[in-house]
Amino acid sequence: MQIAILLYEGFTALDAIGPYQTLSPLPDAETVFVAERPGPVRDDNGTLTMGATASYADVPAPGIVVVPGGPEPDLENGPLLEWLRAADATSVWTVSVCTGSLLLGAAGLLRGRRATSHWLALDQLRTFGAEPTGERVVFDEKYVTAAGVSSGIDMGLALAGRIAGDAFAQGVQLMIEYDPVPPYDAGSPEKAPAEVVRKFRQAG
Amino acid sequence: MQIAILLYEGFTALDAIGPYQTLSPLPDAETVFVAERPGPVRDDNGTLTMGATASYADVPAPGIVVVPGGPEPDLENGPLLEWLRAADATSVWTVSVCTGSLLLGAAGLLRGRRATSHWLALDQLRTFGAEPTGERVVFDEKYVTAAGVSSGIDMGLALAGRIAGDAFAQGVQLMIEYDPVPPYDAGSPEKAPAEVVRKFRQAG
Repeated sequence: MQIAILLYEGFTALDAIGPYQTLSPLPDAETVFVAERPGPVRDDNGTLTMGATASYADVPAPGIVVVPGGPEPDLENGPLLEWLRAADATSVWTVSVCTGSLLLGAAGLLRGRRATSHWLALDQLRTFGAEPTGERVVFDEKYVTAAGVSSGIDMGLALAGRIAGDAFAQGVQLMIEYDPVPPYDAGSPEKAPAEVVRKFRQAG
Repeated sequence: MQIAILLYEGFTALDAIGPYQTLSPLPDAETVFVAERPGPVRDDNGTLTMGATASYADVPAPGIVVVPGGPEPDLENGPLLEWLRAADATSVWTVSVCTGSLLLGAAGLLRGRRATSHWLALDQLRTFGAEPTGERVVFDEKYVTAAGVSSGIDMGLALAGRIAGDAFAQGVQLMIEYDPVPPYDAGSPEKAPAEVVRKFRQAG
């Protein structure tokens, strides 16, 4: 199965790497990094580049489409949305992390579907006819959306389990030693101190 | 403060991206990706490249040195170990994820120190005079080591808290929405099903 991870200027690195690290070990998986043009693609910090290995035209029919988010994804990027729609037409799974779900929405793929996104972008899903939920990972038929940035790890493991079985996914989890012990309990707006949440709501 | 993230052929992507995503937001941080030569560096799957922005010579005195691991890091890579020793001589923090601690050990930086590594590599730390511990993140003065792959996220957040305070680190955690809900409880050899653990011990 071909796994196509989309890259575009301003993507968030961990949004792409969470699913990459958990899905690329799947049996018979071939992972490609897809962008408008092959070559280095800069992330949202402007510091990191990851290499696209294929252009849109090179990857017409991937089995899994993975769409990372970023702080301000261009929801009017014609060639990107066109590729998403075409790839989705035959994909087995179409998945997103963080505001990647807004790109799926802008491509018209989430109408009438339950979906999630980064907590700051959750309401925006309604613009595209989707029903936002507060869950960390949402399965709606072949569409799987994950909440902010780090949730792509949870999503990737859950999807690996659906595809290759629980024991396989447990092996992936064990090898990436995903036994999280965050130093704070501040990973969601319900749990973080109110003044920390307020700061980001005001900036957003 | 300059944050130097080391890249070398065969590194594990999430080992580098966990600390990157949690440390690069630090106030006044300048993040560089360092390798023997600037340019694309291939990961352990052979699929992903990340771009090194600087050579060893370009980064003589970073404030934070970050060393990712990989399945088989070359513990006799002279130029790499030489750079590590030189950078460590003036660093404020020297940190590793996964088998990155073996590289720190091979550079002679962990003698007599408590440290951790990927669960399959933990015992190997003794070879370098370190005392392995089963903790996920280990602080020993300026040396901070993290367990396998995904633990770099926990380590990065803990270190961000030491450097910039709890509220700052909680803000980073909130923005990457790190409120983990792994689909399985299989992230350590103590928790994963025995037959899953056995499979990887035999392969290792």
